[in-house]
Amino acid sequence: MKFKIDNLQYCNWSREVFEINRKANLDAVHVTVVYHQDFDEFCTEIKNWDKLLNDNSDLIFLGKDYKDIEKAKSEKKTAIFFGFQNCSPIEDDIDLVKKVHELGCRFMQLTYNNQSLLATGCYEKFDSGVTNFGREVIREMNRVGIVIDMSHSAEKSTFEAIEFSEKPIAITHANPSFWHPAKRNKSSDLLKALSDSGGILGLSLYPHHLKGNTNCKLDSFCEMVARTADIMSIKHIGIGSDLCLNQPDEVVTWMRNGTWSKSKNYGEGSKSKSGFPKQPEWFKDARGFDNIEEGLKKIGFAEIEIDGILGNNWYNFYKTI
Amino acid sequence: MKFKIDNLQYCNWSREVFEINRKANLDAVHVTVVYHQDFDEFCTEIKNWDKLLNDNSDLIFLGKDYKDIEKAKSEKKTAIFFGFQNCSPIEDDIDLVKKVHELGCRFMQLTYNNQSLLATGCYEKFDSGVTNFGREVIREMNRVGIVIDMSHSAEKSTFEAIEFSEKPIAITHANPSFWHPAKRNKSSDLLKALSDSGGILGLSLYPHHLKGNTNCKLDSFCEMVARTADIMSIKHIGIGSDLCLNQPDEVVTWMRNGTWSKSKNYGEGSKSKSGFPKQPEWFKDARGFDNIEEGLKKIGFAEIEIDGILGNNWYNFYKTI
Repeated sequence: MKFKIDNLQYCNWSREVFEINRKANLDAVHVTVVYHQDFDEFCTEIKNWDKLLNDNSDLIFLGKDYKDIEKAKSEKKTAIFFGFQNCSPIEDDIDLVKKVHELGCRFMQLTYNNQSLLATGCYEKFDSGVTNFGREVIREMNRVGIVIDMSHSAEKSTFEAIEFSEKPIAITHANPSFWHPAKRNKSSDLLKALSDSGGILGLSLYPHHLKGNTNCKLDSFCEMVARTADIMSIKHIGIGSDLCLNQPDEVVTWMRNGTWSKSKNYGEGSKSKSGFPKQPEWFKDARGFDNIEEGLKKIGFAEIEIDGILGNNWYNFYKTI
Repeated sequence: MKFKIDNLQYCNWSREVFEINRKANLDAVHVTVVYHQDFDEFCTEIKNWDKLLNDNSDLIFLGKDYKDIEKAKSEKKTAIFFGFQNCSPIEDDIDLVKKVHELGCRFMQLTYNNQSLLATGCYEKFDSGVTNFGREVIREMNRVGIVIDMSHSAEKSTFEAIEFSEKPIAITHANPSFWHPAKRNKSSDLLKALSDSGGILGLSLYPHHLKGNTNCKLDSFCEMVARTADIMSIKHIGIGSDLCLNQPDEVVTWMRNGTWSKSKNYGEGSKSKSGFPKQPEWFKDARGFDNIEEGLKKIGFAEIEIDGILGNNWYNFYKTI
């Protein structure tokens, strides 16, 4: 079986977006449901998703485990897996881990850029690693079946999450820093440790994570995939596009600032380029998977390897959750 | 004027407790209103306090600034100042700092033992210092007039809070570690930096912070005060008894564990001694201020120094808020 999976999107969800994902033949998408929302606010988002799932039940349904990826393929639909980019919904309550799992959560970042109650984000000056509460939460996430996602975390915290977690962890959306040294991209040592522990990397198509940003060439991206496969097992590389289709710029401002600052932070952007960056021509939306497929063929990957990168590796990872 | 101030109590509040504090001639008490409660839960606590303040208006009233300490003395009442032992009520929202100030908050710990969104607690393995959000919150606390309290914080975080805060900070309830090396007590270097920056230490009467615990001798306590005055300016030493009068043991379990752990943490206690420790004979409640006064006289402090330690130093500190 060949599965196509985009393991991170945060689009302005609409029928149009779900149709595009179907045209791209995506069998599964891990969608970001919340960033900085607390538990009650997460429940409100779930209500919005109930409506989306209901109104578009010919295109999508809520995925619970890897079998729903198989089901999606056979029904020509896209399975939607819920995830959080910050740990705000569990607040300071270990029992909420089980609760959010019951409500559909399958991925949770321990931190989004800043320090959280669990670990340190990549925008902090010092990285103290996984906290006391963080250790408890990792154990509970392992138990109930929520994947630890360290995409926005600082390095020491990520190494510790790999060490403390009994199940493989994920970096759902980031690229190697050897290719493009952005704050959010990951060191080769870290990627090796991730792969060695059974964890998986979702390569990002978000321009700030790409060499040359919006002008990044497909060839350069595919060359990067080949070099990454020298560091990591090729079976532990997938796609997590970080696609934010149709989102207004206010959303990226909120993602970066939440409610924690009086002044404005521009994150990966800058004052003059504060909005969402423009996607490269070859990945304007999920239909860009076809371009990546072509590019990977051209650079010499075997078909089985390409199938892995475009979805089968994520499918196999879902089996471990 | 001679003021008597206990700058930290977390009693099981009742008319009986307020009467004892009046018998002890306390003009002001900084009371812990919340530990791990979020903003909504803090509002509930405020409602409870509204009733307490109303039902006991012949004994207590809500204090807003140092003038209310003067008012309390002239009216023979005790001014109650609200404080938080954790930063949970401001959640992840910088604008809630002003809101909690409006609702009466005058002291807030940046952390309670564990890592918070602001800084590191003294029970964490690594101390990353004040976080990005922490810097923003310190600035806002300075602006609106809430004192930064680092009683339960780790050392590097405390040094940084002293450095980043434009106003003097407080350690409302702890003792020097040279006397009793408990995790919650403070190093001489830290106490010196606190004093040099205009900050103040409230000496604790909580048995886990005392040499010999429950069996601590008054002479030993007073000798410690004298040695502390060799490190810090004697004008920056006061009392923050940490008195938990009439609290059931469930409360200390909750203080230590909040909702963050599946297993049980005993904090400063142990499995066999998990409850509140017994107070020493000479400080069973706030009337023990008289015993401390006698002890400080005996060891050779001048009257003006003793008046400072028992309340005037805190009164002067309140003027800086």
